Amino acid sequence: MAFINEHYLKLQAGYLFPEIGRRVKEFAEANPVAAARLIRCGIGDVTEALPPACTEALHAAVDEMTDRETFKGYGPEHGYDFLREAISENDFQSHGINVTADEIFVSDGAKCDTANILDILGHQNRIAITDPVYPVYLDTNVMAGHTDAANDAGQYGGIVYLPCTAENNFVPAFPDEPADIIYLCYPNNPTGATATREQLAGWVEYAQKNNSLILFDAAYEAFIQDADVPHSIFEIEGARDCAIEFRSFSKNAGFTGTRCAFTVIPKELTGKDSKGNAHSLHALWSRRTATKFNGTSYPIQKAAAAVYTEAGQVQVQGLVAHYMSNALILREAASTAGLEVFGGTNAPYIWLKTPNNAPSWDIFDRVLNEAAVVITPGAGFGNAGEGYFRISAFNSRANAEEVASRIEKISW
Amino acid sequence: MAFINEHYLKLQAGYLFPEIGRRVKEFAEANPVAAARLIRCGIGDVTEALPPACTEALHAAVDEMTDRETFKGYGPEHGYDFLREAISENDFQSHGINVTADEIFVSDGAKCDTANILDILGHQNRIAITDPVYPVYLDTNVMAGHTDAANDAGQYGGIVYLPCTAENNFVPAFPDEPADIIYLCYPNNPTGATATREQLAGWVEYAQKNNSLILFDAAYEAFIQDADVPHSIFEIEGARDCAIEFRSFSKNAGFTGTRCAFTVIPKELTGKDSKGNAHSLHALWSRRTATKFNGTSYPIQKAAAAVYTEAGQVQVQGLVAHYMSNALILREAASTAGLEVFGGTNAPYIWLKTPNNAPSWDIFDRVLNEAAVVITPGAGFGNAGEGYFRISAFNSRANAEEVASRIEKISW
Repeated sequence: MAFINEHYLKLQAGYLFPEIGRRVKEFAEANPVAAARLIRCGIGDVTEALPPACTEALHAAVDEMTDRETFKGYGPEHGYDFLREAISENDFQSHGINVTADEIFVSDGAKCDTANILDILGHQNRIAITDPVYPVYLDTNVMAGHTDAANDAGQYGGIVYLPCTAENNFVPAFPDEPADIIYLCYPNNPTGATATREQLAGWVEYAQKNNSLILFDAAYEAFIQDADVPHSIFEIEGARDCAIEFRSFSKNAGFTGTRCAFTVIPKELTGKDSKGNAHSLHALWSRRTATKFNGTSYPIQKAAAAVYTEAGQVQVQGLVAHYMSNALILREAASTAGLEVFGGTNAPYIWLKTPNNAPSWDIFDRVLNEAAVVITPGAGFGNAGEGYFRISAFNSRANAEEVASRIEKISW
Repeated sequence: MAFINEHYLKLQAGYLFPEIGRRVKEFAEANPVAAARLIRCGIGDVTEALPPACTEALHAAVDEMTDRETFKGYGPEHGYDFLREAISENDFQSHGINVTADEIFVSDGAKCDTANILDILGHQNRIAITDPVYPVYLDTNVMAGHTDAANDAGQYGGIVYLPCTAENNFVPAFPDEPADIIYLCYPNNPTGATATREQLAGWVEYAQKNNSLILFDAAYEAFIQDADVPHSIFEIEGARDCAIEFRSFSKNAGFTGTRCAFTVIPKELTGKDSKGNAHSLHALWSRRTATKFNGTSYPIQKAAAAVYTEAGQVQVQGLVAHYMSNALILREAASTAGLEVFGGTNAPYIWLKTPNNAPSWDIFDRVLNEAAVVITPGAGFGNAGEGYFRISAFNSRANAEEVASRIEKISW
């Protein structure tokens, strides 16, 4: 037998969502009548159709594939220029943000990118991760061998945890010990919190002072409603020297099943070798991409580019408005029910304090059993998520309204 | 600055195809007239349109995405059952090969899979790689830190090279030192060679005796013409205990720009931890996939499933016949020109001895300058590829015939 990567054995049992699936299945088998009215507000998956601009572009691209004259074989591993240029122009340049097309790497998912980025980084980096957190950041560091085994509280040795709670408005304090790599995600999954311009500027300053790299996940930027909340880390002066940004078409344009995302690595961004020599992270990621990836499907890239057409923009705004209206309805219902509510104003997630500090899995079971609604227990996102739970606003209007009415009836 | 993965610095300058691109560009700038008649037989990229069954399925799947009732969000990370079942039934069960649907992991490319598989394997494995070889196997091991720096001959310390030359019919002898992981690719890229059933059985026996894991790349199996050449390592008794197989829709159905592939990991296949305890590789890959990947695009999976319809099968056979007829034309021309010719009978690649043992980059330059044809120099695939070059049969019939006629006129 070949040797396995033993670091995988340190992973805590089960990814969050499989455990939710198991409990829902058990509930459905025991309560077939209630199960028929089950509404899922757990996993953050979109529910509405793709924007027509995207499906039209997909059909047109598929037609190109039917004719050898317009057929596309291998594309550039880093993405087609038509898409990289559309992203650069519409998401950055037109907002006064300096990100060029050749700093954009198109991929099939921000999950893949936030996981794969560790490939080009050294094992000796001290990693700081917010808590609660999107589990992928943590699990991929465990798998890469950057941690010790988990302790009884489920925390991994070697990780600097940055608690995000109501007390700090879900934007963490700087770590006590210097960190080489810091994962930040704003608007935040799971808390729905945003970071102000001043807070992000503080993190960029911290990174510059401590020679840290910020891995900034902006997958939810399209949901920002407040004019003064930054959409990109690159709105902050100095970020090009210390940050990589991840974005996705999954949530704004509903591409969770269609698959397209991108990563921005500024050309001047460097990492160091063990002798202290600087090396371009753009060049390393470029090499990684060329060697381990063969580009995103051509028709899918055409669909993503259609997001930036005039029609596409209107349609994406419509989708965002739809989900944000759901968020408002859910927020109001939860407030009316007496719950302490966070998020949901610049993000499609509502983050709620459990009543009387009840354990979040208890609340999960209560909401499932009393209301046939699936939420996500905060503990599933980390220790600092205990005492909270998440409701996703990704749903039909009818479901959001029905969940709102059920929320008000639960014996909180 | 964060630390980088310094192993990347050991990589030899440039991936093969960028260097080819550089020389072709230089040629085109110096010879604009000749460049107008340039024909590329270098990179193994398909040229013909997607099968109509696949584009029809794509259109239908895109239509599903236009309606929220049939819209698909996140799919199963391991692939939809409709595709896994179609693969299991058509590629394996109907040929008497025991591979079940849940042993199939659908992905966006065999390049990604052959690269990513190292994630679940330990760094202490001794790696054996054929020479010449598809560069991804080697480069990903360098990037993962499984090698020392390259020596002057370009070979990396820590890798067991298995030379494949005309002397051994391009199927290597067993290594002198035991190897934990062995990469095999048949039909072979770049040599176009196949392994007989007896030869593969020998490798399975070797793997069983030495507790090795065989990583078997069968991306070109659809091009096999001879009835007695195995299409899958799992045709060999005992392979389920020692092999993982990689397959792709890229070459048979022309998906190089569409992106779909799959990996087969038998449930009983195990690796060991450093204490010698066995662990399921299927479970490890399953965890890797769930954590670092979000599934292949839904419309693309529908297109891949259409390969297995009656119409799809006829169309794929037509594509294979087209490219294999090109291969025959190219083989005959090269023979007529007095070249020593290998491959091209069960694979879309022709592998040729350079005349008078000329260096293969010299032949690359000669063929480019005299015939305006791009081939691939054997040295680009490894030291044992020196003295050989590859012609790809992926082309239009007109181009294949034109290349054939030019081959006969070169001053070999």
